[in-house]
Amino acid sequence: MISGHTRVIAHIGVPTESFKAPMIYNPWFEAMGIDTVVVPMGCETADFAGFLPLVARLRNFAGALVTMPHKVATVDLLDEASTAVRICGACNAVRRDPDGRLIGDMFDGEGFVRGAIRKGCEVAGASVLVVGTGGVGSAIAASLAGAGAARLDLYDINPASAERLASSLRKAYPEIEVTTGVNDPAGREIVVNATPMGMQEGDPMPLDVTRLDPGSFVGEVVMKREETAFLAAARGRGCRVQIGTDMLFEQIPAYLEFFGYPTTTAEELRQLATIRY
Amino acid sequence: MISGHTRVIAHIGVPTESFKAPMIYNPWFEAMGIDTVVVPMGCETADFAGFLPLVARLRNFAGALVTMPHKVATVDLLDEASTAVRICGACNAVRRDPDGRLIGDMFDGEGFVRGAIRKGCEVAGASVLVVGTGGVGSAIAASLAGAGAARLDLYDINPASAERLASSLRKAYPEIEVTTGVNDPAGREIVVNATPMGMQEGDPMPLDVTRLDPGSFVGEVVMKREETAFLAAARGRGCRVQIGTDMLFEQIPAYLEFFGYPTTTAEELRQLATIRY
Repeated sequence: MISGHTRVIAHIGVPTESFKAPMIYNPWFEAMGIDTVVVPMGCETADFAGFLPLVARLRNFAGALVTMPHKVATVDLLDEASTAVRICGACNAVRRDPDGRLIGDMFDGEGFVRGAIRKGCEVAGASVLVVGTGGVGSAIAASLAGAGAARLDLYDINPASAERLASSLRKAYPEIEVTTGVNDPAGREIVVNATPMGMQEGDPMPLDVTRLDPGSFVGEVVMKREETAFLAAARGRGCRVQIGTDMLFEQIPAYLEFFGYPTTTAEELRQLATIRY
Repeated sequence: MISGHTRVIAHIGVPTESFKAPMIYNPWFEAMGIDTVVVPMGCETADFAGFLPLVARLRNFAGALVTMPHKVATVDLLDEASTAVRICGACNAVRRDPDGRLIGDMFDGEGFVRGAIRKGCEVAGASVLVVGTGGVGSAIAASLAGAGAARLDLYDINPASAERLASSLRKAYPEIEVTTGVNDPAGREIVVNATPMGMQEGDPMPLDVTRLDPGSFVGEVVMKREETAFLAAARGRGCRVQIGTDMLFEQIPAYLEFFGYPTTTAEELRQLATIRY
């Protein structure tokens, strides 16, 4: 129940109709007795650079969840950016420090890593293939690097995109071996589909699944309730798998912690959410 | 339940802790199945002139309820101001027209007039005494003028305040007789206490109640669940009375209509509200 004491997390993007965060965060806040609410704010592109700093100065501002099309524009508005933000060139979480400075982070990839680790996947020292180096692929690669992956192969149908990400990763993590141009999963302990392939029925596979090692941990970003054809094929090869929505729910505790809320789990959030995946 | 489809009424003021509108509007929206939510936004004074136009451009903006300390500053940000706004020099409701223009109005006084009329008070042609010509007194005087009052006596302990309001009223309604400087209710069909006197136990009366005519309709702006000492005295004289919270609930249908929502009644709002007066 909203009152004058309620703090607001501004969920900023446009259009807003596809937003899912209100239906995941708000039931949890209510169940926990936390007087905070996630509110969609359909800010136009031309207004964003003016709007974000002002909404962040509201006395009851609790944070901002930034989404399309503003994730890149957010970076220039920050006073402090995390390593993941610097690598991805994008930011989707902003909080205001007591001194008024805007702190930005990006936990999309963190959700993938947390989920993988909780499923028993060893990330530290792993060799990884990430196919698709757009926003979410970049975030996953950055988080895997932050979690101690030893080798990252990056592949994108747009080679310049993979090169850009590789260059950022090498700068932030000089000790990691980063390669581009090959999408062969053979010998990779972690394999990630970070392309949209699998969203549509009949999409081609993002990579040659017959080359997957049975010991690989295979993850997916396509958000479907059920397993995608890619994950089904990976499981057929004997791989452990992680569905896209696991990544979604696993990342939310990281955002909540970033905004200063108590720790929770992906399971608790999933059970309370008023949307189902 | 907030989702990406939810429209937002920005309730802007600072501090926000005393806000009541969320607990009155939101239960009604929910009961009506209207996907709109009133959200408190604690905007600092220095930020307001930048913030209001930007929040009003949000694609899911449904309106703004503006309160202290921004009601006066709002006037200069409007493309179109109602007569009440021009008379009061203050605005507390803003909507965005399809062409992007900001339209401002002010219904504090409208709540007083609607409540009085529903209680059988004849406003058209009435002679009126308004004691207290601050924000709410100005709004009530403006609404009574708009509803056809024939004569308005204005009194304030700060004579310049009453003079300013008198001058604005004469300009907007040259046909109305407006006087200042006297707070004698004798012979006045409508008598309004628009001062804060009555908020504290033991406050003096805002005017000499022994001079009230038994036929007068006597109203109050002090928001108390029970009758104030002033109203009790007026009722003792035989007057019909209107308590402060009637004005509050009576004005909300006017705001809802201004924002484009269906018509409702003060009773329905009172029954659904999660605060009680």
